[in-house]
Amino acid sequence: MTTKPEAKTVAVVGATGAVGAVLLRELERRRFPVGELRALASARSRGAHVRFAERTLEVEEARPEAFAGVDFAFFAATGELSKSLAPVIAKQGGVAIDKSSTWRMEEGVPLVVPEINAATLEKQRGIVACPNCTTIGLVMALEPIRRAAGLRSVVVTTLQAVSGTGRPGIEELERQEGELARGDAPTCKTYPRPIARNALPFCDRFSEAGYTIEEWKLLHETRKILDLPELELSMTCVRVPVPVGHSASVLVETERPLTAAAARQVLAAFPGVEVVDDAPRELFPTARDAEGRDEVLVGRVRQDIGFARRLWLWQVADNLRKGAATNAIQIAEEMIRRGLA
Amino acid sequence: MTTKPEAKTVAVVGATGAVGAVLLRELERRRFPVGELRALASARSRGAHVRFAERTLEVEEARPEAFAGVDFAFFAATGELSKSLAPVIAKQGGVAIDKSSTWRMEEGVPLVVPEINAATLEKQRGIVACPNCTTIGLVMALEPIRRAAGLRSVVVTTLQAVSGTGRPGIEELERQEGELARGDAPTCKTYPRPIARNALPFCDRFSEAGYTIEEWKLLHETRKILDLPELELSMTCVRVPVPVGHSASVLVETERPLTAAAARQVLAAFPGVEVVDDAPRELFPTARDAEGRDEVLVGRVRQDIGFARRLWLWQVADNLRKGAATNAIQIAEEMIRRGLA
Repeated sequence: MTTKPEAKTVAVVGATGAVGAVLLRELERRRFPVGELRALASARSRGAHVRFAERTLEVEEARPEAFAGVDFAFFAATGELSKSLAPVIAKQGGVAIDKSSTWRMEEGVPLVVPEINAATLEKQRGIVACPNCTTIGLVMALEPIRRAAGLRSVVVTTLQAVSGTGRPGIEELERQEGELARGDAPTCKTYPRPIARNALPFCDRFSEAGYTIEEWKLLHETRKILDLPELELSMTCVRVPVPVGHSASVLVETERPLTAAAARQVLAAFPGVEVVDDAPRELFPTARDAEGRDEVLVGRVRQDIGFARRLWLWQVADNLRKGAATNAIQIAEEMIRRGLA
Repeated sequence: MTTKPEAKTVAVVGATGAVGAVLLRELERRRFPVGELRALASARSRGAHVRFAERTLEVEEARPEAFAGVDFAFFAATGELSKSLAPVIAKQGGVAIDKSSTWRMEEGVPLVVPEINAATLEKQRGIVACPNCTTIGLVMALEPIRRAAGLRSVVVTTLQAVSGTGRPGIEELERQEGELARGDAPTCKTYPRPIARNALPFCDRFSEAGYTIEEWKLLHETRKILDLPELELSMTCVRVPVPVGHSASVLVETERPLTAAAARQVLAAFPGVEVVDDAPRELFPTARDAEGRDEVLVGRVRQDIGFARRLWLWQVADNLRKGAATNAIQIAEEMIRRGLA
C-alpha cells in the first residue's frame, strides 16, 4: 500500500547559514512532506528571518524545547549544537540528521550516502551523520568502481570551494576579489593566506602528522562509508577561489583490471553520477557545471600510463547540494521510504 | 683569471609576450652582460615597442637576417619561429635558448634546469631547450629527494596559472572576472570553459590516451631532465584562476626511506629551493607567495599515512620567472661561466 507520506515536523538548525539556506530551498523543491517547519540557529542569529514555501519564518534559538514533536531535525550548524541537541531529539523519538563532524565516527551512528549504504539506516537510533562535503563526492565516484573491480588504493588531491567554509568563506573570497580589483592588498579573516587568485593547500586546521583535519576526515569517513576500514587512501586537500563546487583529482588502483571505457559505463549507470567525458569534443566536468545540480559529475577517466589497474578521474559535485543539503534530505527520504520515521 | 664577461649581443624573440616581458626585465635586473639587445617577434607584432634598460626599443620581425652576430637568442614565442630560426642561429655560431616545446625532446638538444643538469650543456650544439613551466617546478622539488633517497614513482596534480597560456590566458581571466562582477555570463575565447571562479582539468589540448599535451610534456621532460627514462610519473594537469604561480600537489615514492624532516633538510639545502613549512604557525607556500620570486617553494612535506617510503609535498613556482625567463637566463649565464659562449 503506497500512500502519500504523512506530513512531518521538520527543524532546520543553522537556517541562516550557507547550507541551511540550501536545505530550506531543497526541502521545498524536492516536495519533502513538511507539515511544520522550524527555523533554528544559535542564539546569535535569533530573530533573523528566512523564507520557506512563500512564508517568512522568524529564526528561533535552537534550545531543547524547540524540538518538541520534531520528526526530523537537520543540523547545518556548529558541532557544539548537534553534540548537545541530537541526543535530546533521539530521546524524544525524532531523528537528528547532522551535517557537522560531531557524530560521524561515533560507533553505532550510521554515516550515510544513500546511494551507497542506505541499509545502515536500519540500525540508526535517532542520530544519523551526513559525511563531509568532500567525502560525499569522492565516495560517489569510488563506489561504482569498487563494485566493478574492487579498490586497492586511492590517491586524491581535492580543489575545494570556499562555501565549504560556509558564509565566511564566500565573504572572504568576494571581499578579496573586490580589494584586488581596486588594487588594494587582500585582507585575511577566514583563511591564513589570501584565497582570491590563489590556491591554499590547507582546509580546516592542521592536525596530527602534518595533515589537516579535513584530510583526516576524508580518510576516516571514506573508510566508514565504504566499509573498507583498511582502504589505502592518501590525500592533499586544497582550497581554491571557487564559490561553489568541490573538485577532486583522483587516482584509483583497482583489485582487478578495469578499462577506462568500462569504468565510464559503471559510473554512468550509478544513481546520482553523471559522466561528462569526451576528449574529441573537449568535454570535461568543472565546478561551475556542478553548481546547482544534485549529480556528481565525473570525467577525464583514463588509464594510468603503464598501469593497467590504475585509473585517473576528475570528480566534481556541488558541495552545498549533494555535498550537504541534498544528501541530508535524501537520508530523510530514505528513512520515510523504509518506514523508519 | 676571472674577468668581467664580454658583452653579448642578445635577441629576445616574443618580446611582446608575457614571458618576453619578464625576460627583458630579468636580463636587466640580473645584470646579464648585454651589449646590444634586439627585441623581435612574429610579423604581427612588428612596430610595437618594449622597454629595456631605460630605452625604448622597436620590435622587429624575427627573420633570419635579424640574428646576424647574435650570441644568445631567447625564444619565448610560438614553436614555429624557433623551429625555423634556431638552426639558423646555431649555424652562425650563436646559441638559441628555446622556451617552446619544439626542441625539448630532440636527441642531442639538452633540456636544462641548471641546478640539476648543467653538465649537459657541454654537449650543446647551438640549441638548448628550456623545459615547460610546470616541469621546472616539479623537477626542482624532485631532484633533492632523488639525490637523498632515489625516486621510485611520482603522482602529481598540478594547479596551473593562466599566464602559462601567455597573455591570452591572463586576458581571459581578467575579462571573465569583470563579466562575473557585472553579473554577466563569462565569455570563453582561450579556454573551452570559464576559468574565473572555476578549475579546469585541462591544460593545452587533448592528445593520446585521454591525456593532454601538457600532461605528456610533464612525463617526457621530467624523465629527460632527471635522466630517468623509466621513471613512473602519473599526472593530471589543472588550470586554476590564478594569474601567476603554478602549484603542484606531489606524492613521491622513494627507493629508500626518507623522513619528512630529512626531506625538508635536503630540499632547503638545494640551490633555488626554499622550504616554507610550519604547521604550528600555519605556514605553507602558495602561488601568490611564489609570484615575483626565483625560488621554487616547497611545503606540506609529510609522510604518507601508512607508507614510510612515500612523501607528500606541495610545490609552487613563478611560472614566468623560474618556470620560464629566469631558467632561460640561468642557462645562458651557466654557458658563459663554462666558457661555452
